[in-house]
Amino acid sequence: MNADSGFPVEERSNGALAARTHGPVHVIGAGLLGASIGLGLRERGVEVTLEDLSPTTVALAADYGAGRVRAADDPDPALVIVATPPDVTADVVERALTRYPGAVVTDVASVKLAPFTELTRRGVDLTNYVGSHPMAGRERGGAIMARADLFVGRPWVVCRDHETPAAALALVEAVALDLGAVLIEMTPQEHDRSVGLVSHLPQVVSSLLAARLVPATEQAIGLAGGGLRDTTRIASSDPELWVQILGANRESVVELLDAFTGDLVAFADALRDPGQPGARRRIADLLSAGNSGVARIPGKHGSSERFTSITVLIDDTPGELGRLLTELGELGINMEDLRLEHSPGAQIGFAEIAVLPEVAERAVADLVERGWRTL
Amino acid sequence: MNADSGFPVEERSNGALAARTHGPVHVIGAGLLGASIGLGLRERGVEVTLEDLSPTTVALAADYGAGRVRAADDPDPALVIVATPPDVTADVVERALTRYPGAVVTDVASVKLAPFTELTRRGVDLTNYVGSHPMAGRERGGAIMARADLFVGRPWVVCRDHETPAAALALVEAVALDLGAVLIEMTPQEHDRSVGLVSHLPQVVSSLLAARLVPATEQAIGLAGGGLRDTTRIASSDPELWVQILGANRESVVELLDAFTGDLVAFADALRDPGQPGARRRIADLLSAGNSGVARIPGKHGSSERFTSITVLIDDTPGELGRLLTELGELGINMEDLRLEHSPGAQIGFAEIAVLPEVAERAVADLVERGWRTL
Repeated sequence: MNADSGFPVEERSNGALAARTHGPVHVIGAGLLGASIGLGLRERGVEVTLEDLSPTTVALAADYGAGRVRAADDPDPALVIVATPPDVTADVVERALTRYPGAVVTDVASVKLAPFTELTRRGVDLTNYVGSHPMAGRERGGAIMARADLFVGRPWVVCRDHETPAAALALVEAVALDLGAVLIEMTPQEHDRSVGLVSHLPQVVSSLLAARLVPATEQAIGLAGGGLRDTTRIASSDPELWVQILGANRESVVELLDAFTGDLVAFADALRDPGQPGARRRIADLLSAGNSGVARIPGKHGSSERFTSITVLIDDTPGELGRLLTELGELGINMEDLRLEHSPGAQIGFAEIAVLPEVAERAVADLVERGWRTL
Repeated sequence: MNADSGFPVEERSNGALAARTHGPVHVIGAGLLGASIGLGLRERGVEVTLEDLSPTTVALAADYGAGRVRAADDPDPALVIVATPPDVTADVVERALTRYPGAVVTDVASVKLAPFTELTRRGVDLTNYVGSHPMAGRERGGAIMARADLFVGRPWVVCRDHETPAAALALVEAVALDLGAVLIEMTPQEHDRSVGLVSHLPQVVSSLLAARLVPATEQAIGLAGGGLRDTTRIASSDPELWVQILGANRESVVELLDAFTGDLVAFADALRDPGQPGARRRIADLLSAGNSGVARIPGKHGSSERFTSITVLIDDTPGELGRLLTELGELGINMEDLRLEHSPGAQIGFAEIAVLPEVAERAVADLVERGWRTL
């Protein structure tokens, strides 16, 4: 075990750029997020110490290279990152602010208003606290799943208020930038409403839609296509984690669910009695609003440009898709997106490739010339 | 124009197998589905005639090779396929049964109960009628989008009743099999309830979820991840088409929407007041039911086996993904599914690859050894 290997470290190992973050950084909670932050900062040569309720977890994270276990006589950190489960975030932040009065304290919980409100209610001085939320896909895993590049290209929300000193904000932002994340600034209210809309509401809707499949016949399920698969994919998420997240963002989620339910009821009512004046128009308007809404979601690189879709039939054998994509590369056709679909009961698949509209025609012609079947 | 080129045709051109279908087949409605059926059957050497309200459409379909325009003195067809919009299906089926009393008549409308009920109400003798529904992804397009392999690997539902003669059923099934589709037998009621559940309900839910994004802030939309993109993808469907489909399957869809709304209200109520006895348990139970439901959706080749997911970071340059997939092929790793995700604001993408659980560990090790970064 090399848990106490540590400072001084090889600065800028494997050619990494110098860190923006000036440590030492102390990470409380050495699970997936905490250990990944440690790993990423260590790669940049930043001094990182670790702490966890579980001696096994903290030793494991240290073994993985996420930092070293904090010792009693270590100097105070410049920054404390609280990476505990959301339901203890407020407690741990409060203790950190008390223990290290000179340090900036941040947290990485997926809700921001609840811990902020709780800390304010307790009268804690929040001058040195800057809440944050790195939106790094998987929240499951533990230290064993940690990766230095977990945050690369992901949004990292930072919440400050008017009291937040520029230096405190800069230190938290430095961590996000050093880890390759994309910085986004919001108030805790904006954050919670936003993730409620783009993450929590879709989760509930997807879960309840998938739940409707439980009593379905095998035959009905056999007709499932790409639409059902897409809309229910996130329904496989961990229920325990989501009970905690949804509970912590209760107010926003309930408001969103109520509004969504209102839309559903209006839609069902119009469909129930299509003879009433304007009923078909209301149905069409709601479906059109869906068109407008989905068009707002950023595609590649934040643009909302729309692409032309080409469907290519592929034999379902290893390497066949790779061959297709290699040939696309050879033809100089840049693929903007790719979706795969398998046919039930058939040894054939469909690759739906999104390309810029101006190259679509040539792409199809070139592919057909090379013997691919396109739809 | 070679609209009246036609019989005799090169039988079994390009090595195709002999057709199961014995023609002549007459296709009424030469849009995407009708023309695609014609193209596929012509490839197998089956005699196909075409008819459409629009002389331009029928000539175009004939030009594309979907069959020849029906002449007044042509012998009666053995099979008539009605491929008109759903709202005129019953009328056209009735006329075809009257005009060609010796022929079997089928249709390809995406709802099955409404035309059947309407025909029964009119007292039409339905002995020679067999409803069907080829579930071929795109329903937009017209003859110009037609493809002989549009139905390859897709479910093709055939609806018969106790009166349906075996020979009539066999003829419709022969067409589906000749076109490479996967046959599924259902009653009209089963069909409409099934597509209501696996296609129409997800469509409405996805559209209304996406509609909620219309008034959202740019910042909120900027936090969108793969979950939102997946759940709202089909919200970009054609509203006009869906007004027609949903209207024709009103009863099933309204029933499903009401049940789904009930689940949503129960969920919101439990979340609104988590202090009430059992509230958190109810939330967890509904989320767990989502887990069970999504597990029922067939994955590859109809199995519901679950896969292990590996996420690989890829530079967002042409050919990079092809290189990854080619290397996976070289390593002998069979990819069961693939999803791409682009990071907002970053020149990097994520490829999420599903593999069998037993090869996941080796796949990651091999990829890392070749210099790929996995999450």
